[in-house]
Amino acid sequence: MSLIRERGRASRGEIARALGLDKKTVSGLVGELAAQSLVQSAGYRESQAGRRQELLAVRGSHSSFIGIDLGATHIIGILTDLTAAVLDRIDFEIRPGLPVELILAQLRSISRRLLGSNKAAAPVKSIGIGVPGFVNPEKGISLVAENIPGWKDVRLREILEGELGRPVAVDDCSRAFGRAERWLGGGKQERDFLLLDLGYGIGMAIFLHGELYTGSGHKSGEIGHTVVRLDGPACSCGKRGCLETVASGKGIAREAAEGIRAGRSATLAGLTHGDAEAVTAQDVAVAASMGDAYAAGLLREAGGFIGVALANAVNLLNPSLVVIGGGLASAGSLLLDGLRESLARYTMMGIAEDLRLELSRLGPEASALGCALLAMEQVFGP
Amino acid sequence: MSLIRERGRASRGEIARALGLDKKTVSGLVGELAAQSLVQSAGYRESQAGRRQELLAVRGSHSSFIGIDLGATHIIGILTDLTAAVLDRIDFEIRPGLPVELILAQLRSISRRLLGSNKAAAPVKSIGIGVPGFVNPEKGISLVAENIPGWKDVRLREILEGELGRPVAVDDCSRAFGRAERWLGGGKQERDFLLLDLGYGIGMAIFLHGELYTGSGHKSGEIGHTVVRLDGPACSCGKRGCLETVASGKGIAREAAEGIRAGRSATLAGLTHGDAEAVTAQDVAVAASMGDAYAAGLLREAGGFIGVALANAVNLLNPSLVVIGGGLASAGSLLLDGLRESLARYTMMGIAEDLRLELSRLGPEASALGCALLAMEQVFGP
Repeated sequence: MSLIRERGRASRGEIARALGLDKKTVSGLVGELAAQSLVQSAGYRESQAGRRQELLAVRGSHSSFIGIDLGATHIIGILTDLTAAVLDRIDFEIRPGLPVELILAQLRSISRRLLGSNKAAAPVKSIGIGVPGFVNPEKGISLVAENIPGWKDVRLREILEGELGRPVAVDDCSRAFGRAERWLGGGKQERDFLLLDLGYGIGMAIFLHGELYTGSGHKSGEIGHTVVRLDGPACSCGKRGCLETVASGKGIAREAAEGIRAGRSATLAGLTHGDAEAVTAQDVAVAASMGDAYAAGLLREAGGFIGVALANAVNLLNPSLVVIGGGLASAGSLLLDGLRESLARYTMMGIAEDLRLELSRLGPEASALGCALLAMEQVFGP
Repeated sequence: MSLIRERGRASRGEIARALGLDKKTVSGLVGELAAQSLVQSAGYRESQAGRRQELLAVRGSHSSFIGIDLGATHIIGILTDLTAAVLDRIDFEIRPGLPVELILAQLRSISRRLLGSNKAAAPVKSIGIGVPGFVNPEKGISLVAENIPGWKDVRLREILEGELGRPVAVDDCSRAFGRAERWLGGGKQERDFLLLDLGYGIGMAIFLHGELYTGSGHKSGEIGHTVVRLDGPACSCGKRGCLETVASGKGIAREAAEGIRAGRSATLAGLTHGDAEAVTAQDVAVAASMGDAYAAGLLREAGGFIGVALANAVNLLNPSLVVIGGGLASAGSLLLDGLRESLARYTMMGIAEDLRLELSRLGPEASALGCALLAMEQVFGP
């Protein structure tokens, strides 16, 4: 089923070859999937030998899933079918620093509205939620989210399963994003790839030997806490000079606020009506596109630092692909220019030859899509 | 067989439980191994139920192997039995920068002497060679070794198999070291662990999900080329500010030479008779142990930079164990103090809780031992 999902459509012969099974075994397996209405016929193809081969595809209308991406600045909830096609969508922009109870209320509200959506062709089987920060996926607990103050040991699964009557799976939001790339995006059929998630925070999903690598305590991927400036600013994690302090949405906003207070950018001061604290990375991108040199410099410098941290990860892991996504990745080309330049400067020669760099093509719903895939994984396995 | 090797001794019942097989299947498998004289009885143990269980161990005298660790400053060759017990040993100190032909001649000479050793109880089945730098293990080619000038695309397998009449396996020397830790050292039964190899260069072996991770082009583990000083000195790899430029045996020697020229250490000048170019990291360790403040500072600073690079790797991979080894790891406690301090400062809190730090207990032959294991792997599989 994973294989059919990954390829979109596949014949029994293809499946047999890819899994190293004989055709009879594959026919048996496909028969079982068809009996459960999980797969369906999806047309025919002429084989080279001139024989007609039936193609199989996942049957989307078998069941529905909810994926919810809880970010520091947004909540995006989607309803999908079994092929991960999006049927319905609800999103909220939220202010960083909302109280925990209010965020839980929004998660409930989004879930209920999607559960009641008239767009679903089949009942919702399960719900996947992606949260920023450390997670215990086995217990469904969101342990800590640096970027949501007061958020600690939130027993999301327990709280929401009781209220919503559906299984709830919880994982890190960047890993959810990575799942979306693995199954629907650039990471298809890629053995060793990294998904760099540039947003209010900076996260990474690591796929090695075709599998998500989560670390000994489910805490892998903290590239946002790579030290890039030994004497740098204090980070919310308690350390100093982390990548996030200078190059994330949060870090760029903090630096821009300093710049406004120091009178370095009339454009940014104007865009925020002089309220330095209110400035966002989005404002910086707008100011840069208006020709503001200070804002442009901030973005390019941020990209440069991200490139250093990414080069370190690439030198360590020698991946064949890095997919770059997240809100900050779409904040204009200056940041990406800075990133590409420093990645090229700091990646070892032989390792750079093995590497492709791609931008995510999955759009702002990527992480929510990954959460829906997480929900499917909970029901059907990875 | 892997399981018996990892545990030293194991009963059929233990093997069945660990592999999830029934006892009958295990008895069959053990019977096959015994028929090939690969395992033998190793005493008995009372089970909790009071039954006598036969213990099995790998039969060392089944076959012999040669492991050769080719470093920038040494060549160590060992002869082992099938349990990786060392039967004989030959080593040379070499000067960095020897011509390729001379190094090949030394590899040949060591191999021939070990092949002819009277310590072997059984014929040598294969030879494993560890080299610094990029390797194509499938073809047995040493692609480039930054620290051996002129060493490029050396077809070690082809050259040596023809001359020695034994299969030759080639891999990166730090990965060989990692194998030794995985099978004989701290990494036994550890799922996610890193081996940090501190020597003339700095390398890393990465074990994830219990398996060696080599990257998409066999180039993983280049932690020595983590950028720790954006404006740092030029590195032999063509980049700037790599960890190796300030913290490896090579980097420490380079810095010490500058210090001698600038008159910063009378002790180092004395130890090297004023020949700044001849200074080694070993001299720096000696000077530090004699109370020289400049030398002590160099070692502590080097350790600090290594700690930063290691913290970055740990934040990314969330391993349960890091084993530290190599010649530089035994160069006194100052470097390790600096390393521990900065690792603690730059590792994220939750990730630090999952992590143990150990020093390798395998001694200076560790990498050569890993090469012998590589040779075994070639014959029997991993």
